[in-house]
Amino acid sequence: MTVSTALQSPPATGASLRARFAEIRETTMRITGPFSPEDQMLQSMPDASPTKWHLAHTTWFFETFVLLPHVPGYQPFDPHFQYLFNSYYKQLGSHPDRESRGLMSRPSLERVHAYRSHVDAAILALLDQTSDEARTLIELGLNHEQQHQELILTDIKHALWSSPLRPEPIPGEPPHPSPSPLTWIEIEGGVHLVGREGSAFAFDNESPRHEVLLRAFRIASRSVTNAEYLEFMQDGGYRRPDLWLSDGWDKVCAESWSAPLYWQRKEDDSAAWSQFTLGGLKDFDPSEPVCHVSYYEADAYARWRGCRLPTEEEWEVAAARIPGRGSFLDDGAAHPRPAARNPQMFGDVWEWTSSPYVPYPGFQPAEGLIGEYNGKFMVNQLVLRGGSCATPASHIRATYRNFFPPHARWQFSGLRLAK
Amino acid sequence: MTVSTALQSPPATGASLRARFAEIRETTMRITGPFSPEDQMLQSMPDASPTKWHLAHTTWFFETFVLLPHVPGYQPFDPHFQYLFNSYYKQLGSHPDRESRGLMSRPSLERVHAYRSHVDAAILALLDQTSDEARTLIELGLNHEQQHQELILTDIKHALWSSPLRPEPIPGEPPHPSPSPLTWIEIEGGVHLVGREGSAFAFDNESPRHEVLLRAFRIASRSVTNAEYLEFMQDGGYRRPDLWLSDGWDKVCAESWSAPLYWQRKEDDSAAWSQFTLGGLKDFDPSEPVCHVSYYEADAYARWRGCRLPTEEEWEVAAARIPGRGSFLDDGAAHPRPAARNPQMFGDVWEWTSSPYVPYPGFQPAEGLIGEYNGKFMVNQLVLRGGSCATPASHIRATYRNFFPPHARWQFSGLRLAK
Amino acid sequence: MTVSTALQSPPATGASLRARFAEIRETTMRITGPFSPEDQMLQSMPDASPTKWHLAHTTWFFETFVLLPHVPGYQPFDPHFQYLFNSYYKQLGSHPDRESRGLMSRPSLERVHAYRSHVDAAILALLDQTSDEARTLIELGLNHEQQHQELILTDIKHALWSSPLRPEPIPGEPPHPSPSPLTWIEIEGGVHLVGREGSAFAFDNESPRHEVLLRAFRIASRSVTNAEYLEFMQDGGYRRPDLWLSDGWDKVCAESWSAPLYWQRKEDDSAAWSQFTLGGLKDFDPSEPVCHVSYYEADAYARWRGCRLPTEEEWEVAAARIPGRGSFLDDGAAHPRPAARNPQMFGDVWEWTSSPYVPYPGFQPAEGLIGEYNGKFMVNQLVLRGGSCATPASHIRATYRNFFPPHARWQFSGLRLAK
Amino acid sequence: MTVSTALQSPPATGASLRARFAEIRETTMRITGPFSPEDQMLQSMPDASPTKWHLAHTTWFFETFVLLPHVPGYQPFDPHFQYLFNSYYKQLGSHPDRESRGLMSRPSLERVHAYRSHVDAAILALLDQTSDEARTLIELGLNHEQQHQELILTDIKHALWSSPLRPEPIPGEPPHPSPSPLTWIEIEGGVHLVGREGSAFAFDNESPRHEVLLRAFRIASRSVTNAEYLEFMQDGGYRRPDLWLSDGWDKVCAESWSAPLYWQRKEDDSAAWSQFTLGGLKDFDPSEPVCHVSYYEADAYARWRGCRLPTEEEWEVAAARIPGRGSFLDDGAAHPRPAARNPQMFGDVWEWTSSPYVPYPGFQPAEGLIGEYNGKFMVNQLVLRGGSCATPASHIRATYRNFFPPHARWQFSGLRLAK
Repeated sequence: MTVSTALQSPPATGASLRARFAEIRETTMRITGPFSPEDQMLQSMPDASPTKWHLAHTTWFFETFVLLPHVPGYQPFDPHFQYLFNSYYKQLGSHPDRESRGLMSRPSLERVHAYRSHVDAAILALLDQTSDEARTLIELGLNHEQQHQELILTDIKHALWSSPLRPEPIPGEPPHPSPSPLTWIEIEGGVHLVGREGSAFAFDNESPRHEVLLRAFRIASRSVTNAEYLEFMQDGGYRRPDLWLSDGWDKVCAESWSAPLYWQRKEDDSAAWSQFTLGGLKDFDPSEPVCHVSYYEADAYARWRGCRLPTEEEWEVAAARIPGRGSFLDDGAAHPRPAARNPQMFGDVWEWTSSPYVPYPGFQPAEGLIGEYNGKFMVNQLVLRGGSCATPASHIRATYRNFFPPHARWQFSGLRLAK
Repeated sequence: MTVSTALQSPPATGASLRARFAEIRETTMRITGPFSPEDQMLQSMPDASPTKWHLAHTTWFFETFVLLPHVPGYQPFDPHFQYLFNSYYKQLGSHPDRESRGLMSRPSLERVHAYRSHVDAAILALLDQTSDEARTLIELGLNHEQQHQELILTDIKHALWSSPLRPEPIPGEPPHPSPSPLTWIEIEGGVHLVGREGSAFAFDNESPRHEVLLRAFRIASRSVTNAEYLEFMQDGGYRRPDLWLSDGWDKVCAESWSAPLYWQRKEDDSAAWSQFTLGGLKDFDPSEPVCHVSYYEADAYARWRGCRLPTEEEWEVAAARIPGRGSFLDDGAAHPRPAARNPQMFGDVWEWTSSPYVPYPGFQPAEGLIGEYNGKFMVNQLVLRGGSCATPASHIRATYRNFFPPHARWQFSGLRLAK
Repeated sequence: MTVSTALQSPPATGASLRARFAEIRETTMRITGPFSPEDQMLQSMPDASPTKWHLAHTTWFFETFVLLPHVPGYQPFDPHFQYLFNSYYKQLGSHPDRESRGLMSRPSLERVHAYRSHVDAAILALLDQTSDEARTLIELGLNHEQQHQELILTDIKHALWSSPLRPEPIPGEPPHPSPSPLTWIEIEGGVHLVGREGSAFAFDNESPRHEVLLRAFRIASRSVTNAEYLEFMQDGGYRRPDLWLSDGWDKVCAESWSAPLYWQRKEDDSAAWSQFTLGGLKDFDPSEPVCHVSYYEADAYARWRGCRLPTEEEWEVAAARIPGRGSFLDDGAAHPRPAARNPQMFGDVWEWTSSPYVPYPGFQPAEGLIGEYNGKFMVNQLVLRGGSCATPASHIRATYRNFFPPHARWQFSGLRLAK
Repeated sequence: MTVSTALQSPPATGASLRARFAEIRETTMRITGPFSPEDQMLQSMPDASPTKWHLAHTTWFFETFVLLPHVPGYQPFDPHFQYLFNSYYKQLGSHPDRESRGLMSRPSLERVHAYRSHVDAAILALLDQTSDEARTLIELGLNHEQQHQELILTDIKHALWSSPLRPEPIPGEPPHPSPSPLTWIEIEGGVHLVGREGSAFAFDNESPRHEVLLRAFRIASRSVTNAEYLEFMQDGGYRRPDLWLSDGWDKVCAESWSAPLYWQRKEDDSAAWSQFTLGGLKDFDPSEPVCHVSYYEADAYARWRGCRLPTEEEWEVAAARIPGRGSFLDDGAAHPRPAARNPQMFGDVWEWTSSPYVPYPGFQPAEGLIGEYNGKFMVNQLVLRGGSCATPASHIRATYRNFFPPHARWQFSGLRLAK
């Protein structure tokens, strides 16, 4: 099986791919533009990476998986980069420890920008004349880059929050629309189809499309808001072990959790809250979706409400009925605040499901190096669905499976109830 | 809903319950008999507990959940024990940290034995005259005790292995029968039923019985043997990251895994292996089921073979077709080595499945304190099925869901292939 | 140079050594008698060891350094013990990690007692006929055993305190006499002599006797009392970083120190204190010497008082002027409470000095294995002088140099002021 | 007592202080000039700090201790900096954790440079008209800055070494002269004077000058060379526990030490060594002083040679007889390699002494905030004497007491033998 069949997506034509390539690569530069070379070096925890590393690693991906195998005689921009910007592809040899990514003052940001330009030019030169397989890999590289666009924002948000001097506002996250009233959408039981449909790009972990047998269920028309979550807190949610999974309670105790990440009591009114955003500290908006909660918190909240989280299959089936969308990273710079919206499943926050991240029945990872992309992470993680304000709009789809470990809070993660 | 309906098992009659109670409590004393009071204090890691603690905690379970609520005026044997031997029931107040269980020189083993006798007498006095609910809780307590019988053996095995002076033989694990040749059993796809059936005792996590939609699959007639696993090792299994889940490979590196737990190279022949057992070091038997592997190792082995692990639903459906059994903890002291056996699913080793431990659709934990028994552990664990040589025979059933985190190796855990 | 000259102590005659040997070995059995085999296995931290280990290790010392080299054809009681009970003599090969001492259920206490009897008999058989060197090593072994007598008590005190169920009273520490009023003793400056004098036994670290140049100083006639220390606490002593050494303040913060070890607020009166002792919890006695303080606490207290700790040389010079003594471990079982006493330097508590533990000018460690006894610990430790209620009386002398790291609190350690 | 008397140094006149101020502040800029803003953010371990932090902290020192108390109406450059660049002065309130210094992308290097200019101007404006006390504090600030000049180099050397991509050469450390043959200098015993002499600037820890009684000793005419140290390594120095202090041996094992820090085996010849320097990897020069060894290594080497390290008093007395000097940080940019030199005590490497860092008899820390400068570190450290190639020449004197914990290796630390 070749990589292209493994990825199962017939390649875009050269022309449309060229336009997408230019746009997505440019978007990455645009969202990193406000940050200084010093900002772009920050690494606040091993799970997060410096912006500069993201810029280089996404470029390394194109160089490694497209240019080196598909351009005869291609010379790497810098031979050290093959080692330096490998994230975790063990079959390519060793790579730096995650926690040392913050020690890369060399290469400079300027040189990483040059690396990007060099690889961009080589890809564009290749595009018209290359094989389906190369085009498929370029498409994969673009989706990979879009994933890193969101990580760039979540990682630097955490770094700026962690720095001793919380910084002044940076143009950042878009405003959220006012929430619609919560309604419950009923979905009938029976056999449903989930997984990748059609021929547009999808990751290997979304295949194969397959039947699942679901019981009838109800799912909320929108995600949980700050105001609703605050009720949980005010009812002692963070002090009642009976509401929590055992591992979750251990985490609450060990890290003294008492609110979502980035919530901060106001100095002049300890009952009021501020929220740290990429745009700086801002007043608490009760109508926004609650965000930056772990799976443990989402699960405890749902239990406290007498509900539960949906499974990923339930979520996907429901999404076919509630197609509305919020606003996204690449919806344009203006980010006007929309009016109160209809029920919707996409945007605002990623939504924790109750489903551990496991292969679909009949899953085949892509062969070769690319096979390390998804499959080897299928343990100790939970699936999130939907997409956040930091996700590129063109990267969103109903079958998309995002995944993080249950304690992770630095993503734009919230929840939606089911019962 | 009362506890008894939550547990869903109509209680046994007083007479048969009396006999079971006496037998199971006696079995615990029998298997701990060979160990000195000093042995019974050993705690080699926070995950494992001292034998003496198990003896007391299983007794505490009867005192706390049966005697205190159901015997008017019952006085606890020792008021301190309510705190001391609470494992993790947060609603009962605080409890000692797991890692301090090895510091309990007081109460002495002698006093713990007296505690057992005291509680045994009180339960037997209660048995004839009590309510269905109390009898249901006693039944739960007996199943709880059987779980701890296995843990007593796995925990002290690890402690004796960890002690500076590996001890002389103790009568321990039964011999294993010779394996039958591996055959593949075909199971047709379609809707199958899984979960608790009938009215015999089962834990809440086995309910409700529900339909699942499976694709056709094949499953091995027996679990993987030492000889087969050795081939994986000799092919560099522990040195090839492409065979491993990412978290598994990190563990291999961090803990320098190069063989299953309790394997030890012979001093006079580094290519040969011994295995540490409760009966001391013994020669490596290639025909035995491979045991003491983590989920990570089971998964890597299956990938190397071009197979996979079964899901827990597949396993359960297959078990209805292959009902054979190995030998078990309470099959009698003799443990004669059986002749080569037929295909079988139970006994020898617990078998890792690829299924994360999650609630069945419609799962309701028991109300009240007992609700903490199972539900709060439903994250970060994988399901094992079957039962090992250290499991009481009467504790085995096809719907039983055992669960451990993916790195755990000190249980009698092996694997069976599927494809 | 032979060991005996290195140790520089002419051996006692056989007769007196025989009496001392019998008495000291018997004292060890007497003080461990009240503890069960289970108690004697407890290890609450790597720095402390189980009682049973102390019993075996002190015996191993005689077997290894006396019997094996000096009794032709001597067969070790158990060849495994050579490895098992080696504490840290690297030249003898490997030894178990300190933290695994609590995992030694085997050998049983009974077998360790048999080991002691076996070695006792062999030493007594050797005594009359052996060389000066062997007798010198036996004398060293007895002093070594006396050191461990104190450690037995400090280590099990910590273990019983750490166990989830604080135990009932055990006959333990002697009462302290009422303190005399504090007076200041003036010592003139000039050249003084310190270090081992005469031919009685002393450790190598007390030699050579040498001149030191001291400035005139004043030293307190007794050690600091609980009442005095409580004033420091009430003045915010544990909350004022300016009073502390930097490393000490880090420790205060990291471990939330707010009182000496073993102090516990009373449940019914949070302003009052109890103290945990080997005799169980007892009421706070303001007149007793403050005990179980670290060097950091001793130093902070002295600074708060506008004083300082004495150097070890000052302490030793002063001791020649103030020879009074408290009561000690082997003063007899009665421990009658003495009347208010005169100024004294010995007994009650070890006293932290401000002197790091370094070799005396011209120090020569004993040659060979025994050279590891003291010299290799001469870094990162502070000298304590005097002796505590848990020190054998015959083990006390003015030139004795005890030493512990500055954070250690589980010894019977207090302080005396100087200025 | 005022600060100025505590510091005991009569202030320089305004004119010479002005010149010194300009020169020393300029030197800091000069040595940091080759490093990019990204380089200047690197923090490789909590013990080390980013260059940018050093630039700001030394400026903060002048602002906090000189400008704020001595310039009426002085407005801090940025009020956040009072918190941000406080290193450890607890009496000034809280300060960031050491390990978060690497997260300060804000303020930018450019803004820190502006901070320096602002404070420089304010100090220069103050200089002519101010009090003796202010001038004394400025002098202290300059000596403080010189200490940080060396730390800038040692810390960034460690960071560049730790980064995944070891960088290309940077103009860095000066070459060392060829060593003279080792000779032994005899110093007679008796009463000697040590400590601060005269009225030039000295730190409080160098006072009071006092008499010490020394035995006759011999001290080497130069420090140990790479070639000599290699003999120790080739004789199994890192594999023989009998040569090491106990804590040192634990460190050797825990961190797998087998050579000084920054030594690296050559890829094409595993028996040959390279050394990482600020000028990049360079060939091993056997004639250079061995450098980047811990106290443990220095002590083990001396024991292996049958010698010992000198005490700090011996070193200081000897330095009066051997006044020669090496080359230093501020000797000029050229750093010509000198010819073989005479015996000398200063320059090349700091030399570990066997003396724990304790107060001199009669030591009084400066009153007030400045009292935290030295005194609170007087535990768990050893004294080093001399000065290295990275020490400013004008910062060197015979009575100077440098100090680091015994495991520290990232300073330019070597050793000299005594006996």
